[in-house]
This record gives sequence, structure tokens and C-alpha cells, in this order.
Amino acid sequence: MEVKIFMKNIKVRAYCSSANLGPGFDIVAVALDAFYDEVEVSVKNGRGDIRVTLVEGPYSSRVDPEKNTAIEALKYIISKYDLKVDVELKIWKGIPVGLGLGSSGATAAASVKALSELLGAPSSIEELIEAAGEGERVSAGEPHYDNVSASVLGGLVLLYSTKPLRVASFKIGGCFVLGIPLVETPENKTKLMRSVLPREVELKKMVYNTSRLTALLVGLLTGDLETAGRGMEDIIVEAARAPLIPCYAKVKEEAFNAGALGVALSGAGPSIIALSKSKEEALIIASAMKKAYESCGLEAITKIAYPAPGAHVVEA
Amino acid sequence: MEVKIFMKNIKVRAYCSSANLGPGFDIVAVALDAFYDEVEVSVKNGRGDIRVTLVEGPYSSRVDPEKNTAIEALKYIISKYDLKVDVELKIWKGIPVGLGLGSSGATAAASVKALSELLGAPSSIEELIEAAGEGERVSAGEPHYDNVSASVLGGLVLLYSTKPLRVASFKIGGCFVLGIPLVETPENKTKLMRSVLPREVELKKMVYNTSRLTALLVGLLTGDLETAGRGMEDIIVEAARAPLIPCYAKVKEEAFNAGALGVALSGAGPSIIALSKSKEEALIIASAMKKAYESCGLEAITKIAYPAPGAHVVEA
Repeated sequence: MEVKIFMKNIKVRAYCSSANLGPGFDIVAVALDAFYDEVEVSVKNGRGDIRVTLVEGPYSSRVDPEKNTAIEALKYIISKYDLKVDVELKIWKGIPVGLGLGSSGATAAASVKALSELLGAPSSIEELIEAAGEGERVSAGEPHYDNVSASVLGGLVLLYSTKPLRVASFKIGGCFVLGIPLVETPENKTKLMRSVLPREVELKKMVYNTSRLTALLVGLLTGDLETAGRGMEDIIVEAARAPLIPCYAKVKEEAFNAGALGVALSGAGPSIIALSKSKEEALIIASAMKKAYESCGLEAITKIAYPAPGAHVVEA
Repeated sequence: MEVKIFMKNIKVRAYCSSANLGPGFDIVAVALDAFYDEVEVSVKNGRGDIRVTLVEGPYSSRVDPEKNTAIEALKYIISKYDLKVDVELKIWKGIPVGLGLGSSGATAAASVKALSELLGAPSSIEELIEAAGEGERVSAGEPHYDNVSASVLGGLVLLYSTKPLRVASFKIGGCFVLGIPLVETPENKTKLMRSVLPREVELKKMVYNTSRLTALLVGLLTGDLETAGRGMEDIIVEAARAPLIPCYAKVKEEAFNAGALGVALSGAGPSIIALSKSKEEALIIASAMKKAYESCGLEAITKIAYPAPGAHVVEA
């Protein structure tokens, strides 16, 4: 596709996200304003070359400038739409990597959004998410759309179909707390955390989890946060992963003791997300979670986070 | 509990309902205005005796005046709240029995609502539903809350917790078509239809069904009926039951061919429910479903139905 380049340079911000929220495995995610990545994209007429010329920010050391989700997502777009452009990328990496916060998805989301703003392709939300999800192949081995959907669209996203790709997004309330243990996670973490999942699930457990998911959705969509919190319980996926999560039981218990409405793994972990009604309560929960990590001998940070907007231009 | 009897006699109507709607097994139900039962309840000071003095209506022959869901539900309430009353029941049975339309649940819902209106007990929605669900023990062997919740509350109900019992209800749009094969079903149908369910489910099938449920809820709650229709697909529970449902594949296929947005078993069947956007389209779908039943050599009726209100007083 020949493109008329109407803007040469753009900077886009995309926020981190928590996928699953308990029973919403592979379907639910929420964008959170705790951390963000920014990607500056420049295009000129060319042959599809993509170069990362700068990686900055607190987590820049974790970004491979030769192979990352942003490059892969842009490659996919350039190939799919046959774009005759060269792309230069500058990445500001503000989201901790490998800790279940959708870090790689956010970089991909920002890059795809930037190219879309510059060139008009991809144009639909589904195409944006598809491309960003393809970028995730680098970090997860296969495309995943939950985190990227949240980072692209913002708020609560529900990935209610993959073939064809369909995502609904909703503005929601609530104040979240992230507990982030500063541990090294393996490169293939997502794959590893999937390998521990059961292949089969008891029907009665499925019905139970389904009722939890229904509570989560009803609660978040109607603003009934107590119901949403009760809906963050997951007896299938999280139960299988819990043994691999540092200090999981203790952090969860203390978060509940401190008033959390619900507690779940953030994505495949190791970060843990709690829901609270207000910033005041969130601060108390955050403090309790931090103490719990300390009692496990772990260094950790906690963050109060609100649902974040989708990927958007911050500087053109 | 000593009760002040401020009204002696009341008549309450409760509508039929379709449970599950595909992937919402044991969690989702919708009240429909296709059929209703009416129950006239009279109370006087007494010792807890319950008598059915009249059973009328097109399906009256299927109601056992000695043992039915209404009697059991009222027994439960009288015992739980220690009500010093005798109760007389007159039942008008307008909902076909044993065909997946929540017939027994509607009778129980109407009776419980009537007693609640007369005596103020049970008072909360959850208590009403709990009592009506207990009535279901007679027909299903154990309490079920999906159909009774729909008949009590009306509209779309989501049973998002059983312990404690929690139900959310929503007004929804859409025009439904019921295909009702006039076949004899065994007394223990619900139990039988549960016995064919798999004990275990593949995780990937669970995730697929969960995405369908999400589509169903998003679609119905936002009025996006095409999404709701796509969300009526169920590859677990319905797949296991389909072989026992007369003319299932043919009716489903022809409903889709005629423009149905989604098709599912109504409860445990054998009735089949289709979703359409408008009455015009529903009429075409109904006609196609009727022809499909005929091609299977089955007598069947079809009904256009809209979401119905909850149990309510029609004559005091």
C-alpha cells in the first residue's frame, strides 16, 4: 500500500495492565495508571526497515533493541499492509518487565497506535489489537490479546472472541493496589506459567469459576465493587499457579485482612493485584502487602493504581 | 413468628423462563412472557397446614396437588419463619411442564411471592429465591435457583453466588423464539440431563465457553444482540445434551438459516430458544423451526417471547 505520509514523527503512551483478574483467564484485563511506556515513532518512505535507535527509562536494560514486541508488531503491520516505509523507534520503558504487568504488550500497543496515527493503518481497533498481539509472539511464543487490548483501549477490556477478534471496553471505577515482588523471572515465564495449568477441569469447578467471573463482570460494570471483589476468586488457573508465586498466600491473606475487596494474580504473576473502594483503604492494603513481602524476605514495591486510558498521543 | 394478617387473599403471576442460554449453565436465566402460572394464596391463623384446593389451566393435569414445588416452597417458609398460618392454594397452570421452560420454578416463585406479599416473609429477594429454589427439590432432587430467580425477578438474571445466594437482574431487549416439541419427558428429566454431563472439561474448552459467556453478558447488557447471539454458543453442556434432544441439530440449523442471532437449549431442554432482533425476524425464525420439527416427524409449538417482568400481584 502506498501511503501519504502526513506526519513524520509521533510519541504515544500506553499503560501497564493486569490480565485475568482471577477467573477471567485470557478474557479479562484492566489498564492501570501505575506505569507506562512511551514510544516515539518516525517514518519515512522506505523498504520496511525498522530500527530501534534509543531505549531509555528505568527498565530499559530489559529491552532487547534487536528483538522486542514493538518491532514484531510493526513488522507484522508493514508486511500485512505492504507499507513502503522505514520506521525508527525510540522506546521509553517505564513498566517493570516480566512481572505480570503487561509490559511487553504495552510497548507493542504504543508502537502500533503510533503507526496507526501516522499512516492510518491499521485502522480498526481489532486490527490494532491483532497487530499488537502478534508482537507478543516474541515474549510469549504465541499471540496474546488480553494485555494488549487493555493497553490499546484502556479501562476494562473483555476479549469475548478470538476468531474473529472482538473486544469490548468499559470505563470502570475502583482503586487497585499492585504488589510487585522484585524477583528475577525466567525469559519464558508466560509459557512456564501456562505449563502448570491443568489440562482438564472438573465441571463443578468450572461452574464455580464461571459464577465468580459473572460476579466480577456484574460488579465492575455496575460499580458494585464488593461484588467485583468477590468475583476475583479463581479456583482453577490461580490455584495451579499459586505454588510458583513468591509469598502468594501471605500477601493475599494480609491484603484481605487489611480490607481488600478482592485479590488475584496480575496476569501470570508474580505481581498480585488487590481491589479496594478508595485511595485511603488502598494505602492501608498496600502497606499490609509490603509488610507481608518483607516477612517472606522479599523486596517488593506497591503501587496504588486507577483504571487508565488507552494508548494515546502525548507529543506529535 | 407471630404474624399480623393484613390481607387474606392474593393472586400472583409468574412467567416461564429459559435457563443457561448456552454457556451460562446454572448461572444465567431469562424470564419470558410466552407463558405464565398464577397462584391464588389465602392465609388464616393456623398451624402450618398447606392445601391445594384447585388446579386449573391448560397444564393442570401435570400438577400433583399433594406434592409440588409450590407446596414445598411454602412449607420451607412456614418452617423457617415459624409462621402460625394455614395456607390454601389455587393454581392456574399455564406453563408447559417438563419442557425446559422453568414451569415448576414459576409456580414456586408465584407462591413464595404471594406469601411474602401477604405476610411480609420472606422479605428479601434472596430469601424469596432461596425458598422458591427449595421448592425445586421436588422436581429436581436438589435446589436450583436459576429458573426461580428469573421468575421472581424478571428480565435477565445472573446467579453470581450460591453461598451466600446472590442474584443480579437486568432489563434487557431482544425478541426470543421458543421451539417447544410436544414430547413426553421423564419425571426425573433434570437429573437425567445432568447425568450426561462430563465430569471434567478441557481447560481450553472452558476458556472458549467463558469467552462465549462474556459475549452473552456484554451483548445482553449493552443491547448488542448480535454479540449476545454469538454468546449463546456452548461447546460443553449443550454438546453433551444435544444427542438426547429431539430434532436438535435440524431445528438449530434452520433457526440460523432463518436469521437467528443465537440458538441454545432452553434449560435442560427439550425446548430450544433462539434470539432475534425484531418480531418480524422472529416470526420467520419461528416458522422455520416449526418446519424443522415437522421434518423430524414431531409435533411442536413455537412462541415469540419478550423478556418478562418478575412475579407480581394481579389481583388482591
